[in-house]
Amino acid sequence: MRRYLPILEWGRHYDRLSLLSDLLAAVIVTIMLIPQSLAYALLAGLPPEIGLYASIAPLLAYALFGTSRVLAVGPVAVVSLMTAAAVAPLAAQGSAEYLGAAIVLAALSGLILLAMGLLRLGWIANFISHPVMAGFITASALLIAAGQVPTLLGLQARGETLPSLFMALLPKLESARLDVLALGLAVTGFLFWARKGVQPLLRSFGMRPELAAAAGRAAPLLAVAASILLVRLTDLAPPLVGEIPRGLPLPALPSLDPALWQALLVPAALIALVGYVESVSVAQTLAARRRQRIAPDQELVALGAANLSSAFTGGFPVTGGFARSVVNADAGATTPAAGAFTALGMVMASFWLTPLLADLPKATLAATIIVAVLALVDLRALPRMLAYSRADGGAMAATIAATLLLGVETGITAGVVLSIFLHLWRSSRPHMAVIGQVPGTEHFRNVERHHVVTAPDVLSIRVDESLYFPNVRFLEDRLLIALAEKPGLAHVVLDCAAVNVIDASAVETLEQLMSRLDEAGVALHLSEVKGPVMDRLQRSSFLQHLTGRIFLTQFDAMMALAPDLTAGCRAADRCETARRRG
Amino acid sequence: MRRYLPILEWGRHYDRLSLLSDLLAAVIVTIMLIPQSLAYALLAGLPPEIGLYASIAPLLAYALFGTSRVLAVGPVAVVSLMTAAAVAPLAAQGSAEYLGAAIVLAALSGLILLAMGLLRLGWIANFISHPVMAGFITASALLIAAGQVPTLLGLQARGETLPSLFMALLPKLESARLDVLALGLAVTGFLFWARKGVQPLLRSFGMRPELAAAAGRAAPLLAVAASILLVRLTDLAPPLVGEIPRGLPLPALPSLDPALWQALLVPAALIALVGYVESVSVAQTLAARRRQRIAPDQELVALGAANLSSAFTGGFPVTGGFARSVVNADAGATTPAAGAFTALGMVMASFWLTPLLADLPKATLAATIIVAVLALVDLRALPRMLAYSRADGGAMAATIAATLLLGVETGITAGVVLSIFLHLWRSSRPHMAVIGQVPGTEHFRNVERHHVVTAPDVLSIRVDESLYFPNVRFLEDRLLIALAEKPGLAHVVLDCAAVNVIDASAVETLEQLMSRLDEAGVALHLSEVKGPVMDRLQRSSFLQHLTGRIFLTQFDAMMALAPDLTAGCRAADRCETARRRG
Repeated sequence: MRRYLPILEWGRHYDRLSLLSDLLAAVIVTIMLIPQSLAYALLAGLPPEIGLYASIAPLLAYALFGTSRVLAVGPVAVVSLMTAAAVAPLAAQGSAEYLGAAIVLAALSGLILLAMGLLRLGWIANFISHPVMAGFITASALLIAAGQVPTLLGLQARGETLPSLFMALLPKLESARLDVLALGLAVTGFLFWARKGVQPLLRSFGMRPELAAAAGRAAPLLAVAASILLVRLTDLAPPLVGEIPRGLPLPALPSLDPALWQALLVPAALIALVGYVESVSVAQTLAARRRQRIAPDQELVALGAANLSSAFTGGFPVTGGFARSVVNADAGATTPAAGAFTALGMVMASFWLTPLLADLPKATLAATIIVAVLALVDLRALPRMLAYSRADGGAMAATIAATLLLGVETGITAGVVLSIFLHLWRSSRPHMAVIGQVPGTEHFRNVERHHVVTAPDVLSIRVDESLYFPNVRFLEDRLLIALAEKPGLAHVVLDCAAVNVIDASAVETLEQLMSRLDEAGVALHLSEVKGPVMDRLQRSSFLQHLTGRIFLTQFDAMMALAPDLTAGCRAADRCETARRRG
Repeated sequence: MRRYLPILEWGRHYDRLSLLSDLLAAVIVTIMLIPQSLAYALLAGLPPEIGLYASIAPLLAYALFGTSRVLAVGPVAVVSLMTAAAVAPLAAQGSAEYLGAAIVLAALSGLILLAMGLLRLGWIANFISHPVMAGFITASALLIAAGQVPTLLGLQARGETLPSLFMALLPKLESARLDVLALGLAVTGFLFWARKGVQPLLRSFGMRPELAAAAGRAAPLLAVAASILLVRLTDLAPPLVGEIPRGLPLPALPSLDPALWQALLVPAALIALVGYVESVSVAQTLAARRRQRIAPDQELVALGAANLSSAFTGGFPVTGGFARSVVNADAGATTPAAGAFTALGMVMASFWLTPLLADLPKATLAATIIVAVLALVDLRALPRMLAYSRADGGAMAATIAATLLLGVETGITAGVVLSIFLHLWRSSRPHMAVIGQVPGTEHFRNVERHHVVTAPDVLSIRVDESLYFPNVRFLEDRLLIALAEKPGLAHVVLDCAAVNVIDASAVETLEQLMSRLDEAGVALHLSEVKGPVMDRLQRSSFLQHLTGRIFLTQFDAMMALAPDLTAGCRAADRCETARRRG
């Protein structure tokens, strides 16, 4: 029970001190979340109030089920972009169908996360490698920022890819409004400055550091308030957010149209995976700082519940956001109750702030989005990855290119498929070395790299990888080549020091190989076989058919098969015996 | 040039002795191939003469491009079944479209094989694991044998799965013909007996052993001749093969209908892969016996050329067959010229034998198919696999069930996908062990299995796998758990003796982990890092950020971090230093 409801754990020890800390953190996060929630709803192509709705129930659900003390769940930029990409092909923006599809998307990704959590399938997310995730986040952030350019110009143009966005914007450029652009750039400049400049400024006025930090988080809300005042007090008439319904929606069941569910299945799975990877990474970073830990499988359950609750209260897909969670942690949140209080703050905002927001310029929200997402862009990672390995750098470059040019769904899918393909390719050709004895020692090293001696009728080969179906044929080819090229061969010794697993394909291939070698008069021996591997070999017929022997060490093997050679090592017990493999 | 045309190699040394050996082998293989080629064409749902056509040009193409000296290419049972499964949904059996689709299938799988060969993608075939291939062959053989039952009963009923075959046969059962069944069972019984009984019998009559063996191969052809005589001389009127056009077809271009090519793309890829795996395995077994070798990538080119030539001469997909190749090798074939002579034999058969075959009962061919494929069924492999590992046995069982119940394409695909999934799953959770020092030695062993000592503030962990994106988060989770559970922890040492690769995801995770540990006041150290891994780490920023140290050995690490502990090992040079990991 406690595994699935962590609140039972931390709730027992909840005291006044925790309450105060959590309340303070909740106030600061709420101030930050109000403009973000509106902005990310617009980014997803939804009415702004949907952002508020998606910032209430999911926070409560996460407070019940989540294992991170400080994760702040809600609408985030990349998931909002993915929502827009998933829903846009199915319905016209602004229509009831569009909203309905976004709600189904939240329900479906919630169910997928929940199922992954209950079936303990969190490991699937490991297959989104770092280079792919980093490339995807960078490219998504660039797409999002580019997508705000039309709004900054007072125009309406959307596109799921850079080229389509450009083509949509181009014909409208002549009606761009410079006054709106001036407003947007001013807000953008202010917010960029505020990220670094507010705190020192306030502190130089004598404000307490914690208070100055909290005030710094209010910069976007301040920009929102100032923009509304500007619109009300001057003649400036930029495109506005417009009337926002006051209060909260009634809970409702998402649409159960099977065709819609089917159309959204793959996007929902991608959103679930990407959201989970982002969220868990944030939660782990913040938990480790306090020597706490999170339970990744339970996080799936919690994020699933958050998304389901979002769907039932008219919201769209949510996940744990990086910036918000860091602020929550820095502001002193000690339990998930801080999230629940934030939800309370958002409820109040839905009742009392919504009437004020009608005059909010969309360009102001676009500016907050741009400033938020440009922090996610990390193009310098690409040359770093390429320098480290071509496979990793290539996967990252492919993900960035595919995301920018073909859209988010194709981008992340291409990245994951390519990295798994490269992984399989790499594991299909393990490093192998023909080894020989370092004269006068019990060491055996790669004949191509070291000065070693070998016996003409013995081939010793070391495989630096477990033997399983993707790579065992590679070993087979290698040995058959040796068999054809070395006419005097009588013994093959397989040094298994680095072999952690031998699967059924490998055992069968080794047996076949053994009988082929046998027909050619060559015996197959094994050395340095690990305990668990040996246990398993004993369950197959391999050892009964073994034409050679099992040697405890490679040196034992050479002593038995090529005594002349090992005689150079005067006495086994006086040899330096520490064996290192490289 | 010689890489792509092995004939240039063996052709130079061709002499009279080789010619005689090859001619003799060709005669024996031709005798065996005539009934098989007719039978496998019927199995593929094609007119019998297509089997003859597919046994001419492909053999010549393989003789030019192939690297095996004895592989006999042509129609084989499993590929014929896959052809029927691929083409049946697209056209009615017996129609020109059906034949056209089979020809396109040969062209397409030829092109796929050729492309794989030129791009050196032969390793892709490694992902068909042994249990999956074994399960697929067994299930296909059972499907093929079951599919011959209607013909044995003088009926017509087809089905791509066991249930659909059963449902197709059931309503027709009352018109089953017992006379046809008697003929079919007689032929089946004769052929089963002939596989073991003919040779000893003939030798007991004083026949030379080689001649007796060759005569044994003629049993199917003898059954064909006897059946024809029986039909001509008696009143028995079973369903007959009917008129077969005499002579050879003119070379023609396969249909270029893009919709047809698209529909056949996936089946063609599966046929290419399965055919290649089967063929290479046969070729390697036979080559090793003579200490020869084959070039797997060139085999792709050769099989690609064979299939393309089949398509251009009105044939269907082909590959290297097991039984036929063994006979070819046993009969003394020394070069691929034996294949070319076999092709010549098949040309003669197309001209001179076809008029005789009109009266051949289909039941006789069904009997030859049953006897041939039942040799491929190996159900005892399943419990053997299950005993060895549940993953391997499960993949095999799933492949068998999916093939029998859902058809060949679903069966092989399900098997491959499942085994790759299990492989990824396994590699996502490597074996890790917390290690401690074996008192008085430099050995370090798993604390759960051995009596070892550890320091309270040092955690030493050994990962028995390379670190890459599928598994690195698993290590991360493990270390974060340790961090949360061990309050006094100050050092983590990662024993990298079994780590052959650290990819970019792993480096980044380690860096994050390191900074998380650092924030909690814990230093991360590495020990036993292999040379190539170290080279690569030096290309990243990992070593600059390293909070701990790199130790050459785990013992060095413990000497530095927990000197009290290692003091028990009196003098390092007198300790037993051979280190074995298990």
